[in-house]
Amino acid sequence: MSTDAVSMDKIVSLSKRRGFVFPSSEIYGGLGSSYDYGHYGVLLKDNVKARWLEAMVRERDDIVALDSSIILHPRVWEASGHVSGFSDPLVDCRTCKQRFRADHLADPEHEEIRCGKRPSKRPGETPDCDLTEPRQFNLMFKTRVGAVEETGVDVYLRPETAQGIFLNFKNVAQIARRKPPFGIAQVGKAFRNEITPGNFIFRTLEFEQMEMEFFVPPDEADEWYRYWVDQRFQWHLRYGVRESHLRIRPHEADELSHYSSGTSDIEYLFPIGWSELEGIANRGDYDLTRHTEFSGTRLEWVGQDGERYVPHVVEPAGGVDRSLLAFLVDAYDEEVVGERERTLLRLHPALAPVKAAVLPLISKDAAMRDKALALRDELRRQWSVEYDEGGAIGRRYRRQDEIGTPWAFTVDEQTLVDDTVTIRDRDSLEQERLPIGAVRGELADRLGRPWRTPKAD
Amino acid sequence: MSTDAVSMDKIVSLSKRRGFVFPSSEIYGGLGSSYDYGHYGVLLKDNVKARWLEAMVRERDDIVALDSSIILHPRVWEASGHVSGFSDPLVDCRTCKQRFRADHLADPEHEEIRCGKRPSKRPGETPDCDLTEPRQFNLMFKTRVGAVEETGVDVYLRPETAQGIFLNFKNVAQIARRKPPFGIAQVGKAFRNEITPGNFIFRTLEFEQMEMEFFVPPDEADEWYRYWVDQRFQWHLRYGVRESHLRIRPHEADELSHYSSGTSDIEYLFPIGWSELEGIANRGDYDLTRHTEFSGTRLEWVGQDGERYVPHVVEPAGGVDRSLLAFLVDAYDEEVVGERERTLLRLHPALAPVKAAVLPLISKDAAMRDKALALRDELRRQWSVEYDEGGAIGRRYRRQDEIGTPWAFTVDEQTLVDDTVTIRDRDSLEQERLPIGAVRGELADRLGRPWRTPKAD
Repeated sequence: MSTDAVSMDKIVSLSKRRGFVFPSSEIYGGLGSSYDYGHYGVLLKDNVKARWLEAMVRERDDIVALDSSIILHPRVWEASGHVSGFSDPLVDCRTCKQRFRADHLADPEHEEIRCGKRPSKRPGETPDCDLTEPRQFNLMFKTRVGAVEETGVDVYLRPETAQGIFLNFKNVAQIARRKPPFGIAQVGKAFRNEITPGNFIFRTLEFEQMEMEFFVPPDEADEWYRYWVDQRFQWHLRYGVRESHLRIRPHEADELSHYSSGTSDIEYLFPIGWSELEGIANRGDYDLTRHTEFSGTRLEWVGQDGERYVPHVVEPAGGVDRSLLAFLVDAYDEEVVGERERTLLRLHPALAPVKAAVLPLISKDAAMRDKALALRDELRRQWSVEYDEGGAIGRRYRRQDEIGTPWAFTVDEQTLVDDTVTIRDRDSLEQERLPIGAVRGELADRLGRPWRTPKAD
Repeated sequence: MSTDAVSMDKIVSLSKRRGFVFPSSEIYGGLGSSYDYGHYGVLLKDNVKARWLEAMVRERDDIVALDSSIILHPRVWEASGHVSGFSDPLVDCRTCKQRFRADHLADPEHEEIRCGKRPSKRPGETPDCDLTEPRQFNLMFKTRVGAVEETGVDVYLRPETAQGIFLNFKNVAQIARRKPPFGIAQVGKAFRNEITPGNFIFRTLEFEQMEMEFFVPPDEADEWYRYWVDQRFQWHLRYGVRESHLRIRPHEADELSHYSSGTSDIEYLFPIGWSELEGIANRGDYDLTRHTEFSGTRLEWVGQDGERYVPHVVEPAGGVDRSLLAFLVDAYDEEVVGERERTLLRLHPALAPVKAAVLPLISKDAAMRDKALALRDELRRQWSVEYDEGGAIGRRYRRQDEIGTPWAFTVDEQTLVDDTVTIRDRDSLEQERLPIGAVRGELADRLGRPWRTPKAD
């Protein structure tokens, strides 16, 4: 099948059925656009974050990691422009009581208009829609720090992780003995009180970001911007996303923030159509200049030779949840093998929640079980592996296919004779025999090899 | 030196100097009791969490992972008792305008009383303290979800991760095909509007928890409770904490929650004295029963044979930040080697932020640099390693000691002749030579060995 045909429903259904992702607070009727990650979802998400940190921090010399607070000093969001500008214009209909984004009203493409509580009536089209004037609604969640209401301080849950990086620019440059070009990378939660969240985990109230701010000499900013657009594009390919499902879309002049001289989205062909997977922005000196103004601390680079300038910033900013969704969609496959259908996730082994399954062919055979359990114990010192003795072997293979386990090792009659096991490949379905003592090395070897999705581009 | 003598100041100073942890929003004057983690802090924290998840999930059959939302349905906190009961009694002094916890007033041990803005005056002792009646102050941060104030819903930032687990009990049991005893483990942020936070990262407004809820048949609860107290105690030992700095303190009857039949704290000898590192509670059927009552969904175990009961819950709950602080304190050491002093972190290699340093003895020697860089490139495909060519070799070793890097590989004149390098051990300071081609295997081997702190117990 072609992935172009994968519906969001199939992804949502698999995610729930196998415990990757499911609606949050479900026994209380749920809370709109909030999701919990189950066992395989946690493992997959951890792998997505680890692969990002590897590529951005561990494998490089010029980027360090940071984990800043979710609740920052409230002046941060004045300096960043979020207090005054991070808002949507909303209108209410006095008749149907629905609320809409004013800038979406005229645009028939916006699903929230077509999918309102009264889908037969489209605001602006129906005579009984009686709209209020637009008013600005800030997307930041506000709360209060301090012992009692009267003396507390209003603070915000960060709507992006980037600002925590800018605040620490000087600090990190000094401690880590860095000079531009260098970067600071962060993975963490952010919160947006979105009026139109939706599409499963594509847009949710709370989500995880992977952001990196790269500080460069001003005259190198354009070059680094192009570099990071390319690097980030390659990262998605490296982990198996098909090139035909990725594209780079440079922002038009009227989409650009006033301070940005260039922004490109890496878009993925989601079931909802081409949508932003990650953005790379050339932010100029806006952020450091604003925080210098508002804090009184000069955020600039001062070299030992007296060289002095405000670095420009190039920012690749992606979403963990959105990336995970793209990996799931791209890996999802259904095929008929023999006379049986199977659903499988052709995930890159470095992303797969479980690296290998260990299965006794006949569960009731104590000798097979013991051998399989011993192998499982050996492998799980290093990797996430799973032992399964429930049901027919074909069914157990299909359960592993569905969660994207790249390899299964099976202990059978022959194992009891010559201490060899079979290794079954998720994608090719090929089976080979190897000595049980060689399994660990073989798995390490296979996990270390470059990998390419077997799905046609 | 004895760690008993390590002051919090030394830990705070090292943490800031080397970028483990530093005050958040510092350029804006800070936000009380909020901290950001720098590069080494992020790596150390990720290792603490990974070791916990390994021990609790990967190496076991009976526990699965979960990552639930920070913002849950508000009814959750009514059911859990947090809306009505998660509060501190506060009193204000009308004269000095300070605020105190009423239950701390009579207790001279509470630092916040001695460390108020006017430390010479102790409330209740000074005639000019004019105290109000106590009033209850809820520790949960409140915010509002929804487009506008009038129609929004009050929600809370979770003050603990545990409730997200209880909500998913039934869900996970079904999806993961589990029957009690089984557990659900979660690592994630929690938030408490503490009136008396402080002591560096011991108590902060936002923090990360590592909680596991273990669901068991009621008649097995006591046995599992003892099992988990022991397991968790062993975990801290396994990662190098000295046994003499750990103790188990069972709660007195008057400290127990009304629903708990037993709770023990694992306490660590922090610079502030013996304090809670982790708690293990026998929570009975309280949580599942309450959520059944409030949600209308029966949270119980129903076996295929018709067996039916509400599982009891045993909960080991620890703090990531607090654990990290204990590891830092326990690993901190100062010693005189020859005529030089060195500060070092004797961290367990599995916790160390950087596993190995690669150093060219003479930085100006291009051949040495090239060899060192090639070795660095090879090692960092697998581990966090650092290359350093700045300054005299002794100084570079001391920089690595201070961040707890267990081993350093040095490329010197002899390397250019016979392709061998030295390996230097952080703790023993012993140096050996080995072929450069054997470094990767040697490092893997050393990282896989059991390890015990060289500090006297």
